[in-house]
Amino acid sequence: MLINGQPGTQISASDRGLAYGDGLYRTLEARHGTPLLWHWQWQRLAADCAALRLPCPDEVLLLSEIATVAANLERAVIKIVLTRGAGQRGYAMPAACTPTRIVSASAWGGYPPDRAADGIVARWCDTRLAIQPRLAGIKHLNRLENVLARSEWHDPAIAEGLMLDMDGTVVEGTMSNLFLVQGGELLTPLLDRCGVSGAMRACVIDTAVNLGLTVRELRLSPPQVLAAEEVFLCNSLAGIWPLRELGSQQWQPGALTRRLQQLL
Amino acid sequence: MLINGQPGTQISASDRGLAYGDGLYRTLEARHGTPLLWHWQWQRLAADCAALRLPCPDEVLLLSEIATVAANLERAVIKIVLTRGAGQRGYAMPAACTPTRIVSASAWGGYPPDRAADGIVARWCDTRLAIQPRLAGIKHLNRLENVLARSEWHDPAIAEGLMLDMDGTVVEGTMSNLFLVQGGELLTPLLDRCGVSGAMRACVIDTAVNLGLTVRELRLSPPQVLAAEEVFLCNSLAGIWPLRELGSQQWQPGALTRRLQQLL
Repeated sequence: MLINGQPGTQISASDRGLAYGDGLYRTLEARHGTPLLWHWQWQRLAADCAALRLPCPDEVLLLSEIATVAANLERAVIKIVLTRGAGQRGYAMPAACTPTRIVSASAWGGYPPDRAADGIVARWCDTRLAIQPRLAGIKHLNRLENVLARSEWHDPAIAEGLMLDMDGTVVEGTMSNLFLVQGGELLTPLLDRCGVSGAMRACVIDTAVNLGLTVRELRLSPPQVLAAEEVFLCNSLAGIWPLRELGSQQWQPGALTRRLQQLL
Repeated sequence: MLINGQPGTQISASDRGLAYGDGLYRTLEARHGTPLLWHWQWQRLAADCAALRLPCPDEVLLLSEIATVAANLERAVIKIVLTRGAGQRGYAMPAACTPTRIVSASAWGGYPPDRAADGIVARWCDTRLAIQPRLAGIKHLNRLENVLARSEWHDPAIAEGLMLDMDGTVVEGTMSNLFLVQGGELLTPLLDRCGVSGAMRACVIDTAVNLGLTVRELRLSPPQVLAAEEVFLCNSLAGIWPLRELGSQQWQPGALTRRLQQLL
């Protein structure tokens, strides 16, 4: 782990990342020190920094830190955390912000391969996502809703929970983004009111557009999800997981899901 | 500063308090090591622990840690932070949780006394509070909304910003709770959908009830605030600040506000 470029494992207990969740993060995979999906990870990281008015670290610096922490790992999970740094008491952003930058790596064997191959079982979460356009899409450090949603089940056979917003619109999984295939189009929830705009989501959209597919971001209801021809979930570590079962509905991994899996 | 009872200034960079804001806090004043409003602080702390399913520390232990960190300070700001501790990657709560407990003190001279004496100027914030009943009232570590709201102004003459929820209902100040006096009754926003249920708020309510006043928690609109006979804001460090000016509306500190100030 590197903290502001120095080897370390601890941060100041006065850091605003702890005090207020005033910061953001990304989780990604690296192979022999090279991050996967970096184009999209970097795009999202820079966009999130701008949205939170957080100074964005230099891209070359970040890549070199990832290479350092993951150097001896064939396959690693990289976590990047950026915060507004230590500060005086109080919500006001410090005039001169000294951000905290944490880059860490841990060895990783990947998720069980049957999830991508055969698909996963998901459930509906009772915990709803609050509607907050100012924070929508950002992978910020205010994640109590996800923690509460993930605490709703312990059955290891259920790989993911789907979350609705306060209006009952389907938004995402607790740790993944959602896509449907319907009438030859790729549909995914619009993340303008809540949810996390993941790097893999952006990559899937770009890949589908390059295939000539129509991709639409829109508000989706639970019945629309259940009626879809194909459903899959994705994130940077999981890749694409076909949805095999949700409530009483069952699916076989579909042709477009398979094609996107092959391309990514 | 004591971290899990030991002198220190740093926490693990893997702490869930940083990763997800998975924890809570309280800020309070201590005089010569004795916390003020402890009855209400402890009540709120225990309630928030229960709401987040966080093990609640022993009260005697907490009091002794406050006494230790504030021993040499005539007047101190105490901050207590409790988190779900370090954990594996992922939102799932660890089966065996080892919470992190941070108790810190800093010398404090109090807010400028004219705020309590003459009242303050406040403004309306553009940043709205999302409606999330599962987290409403809890003083948790997910405070980006407050950070964004507090970043809306820099004029030191404005002491506080009032926040509405997504429905346009008045909820609180960025760092304080709101009370109105109207027709001899004390009114305060109902905090069942968002907002922080402060210790001073609880103390004001109990004190008013003991005075034989009717106290009502309800949804309040901005025009109701502007039309109130008296308006004040409160928190554990500020005590009670009469509202002197909000937009084009002006008030004189009222009789009931003064009476509550004297009692607290």
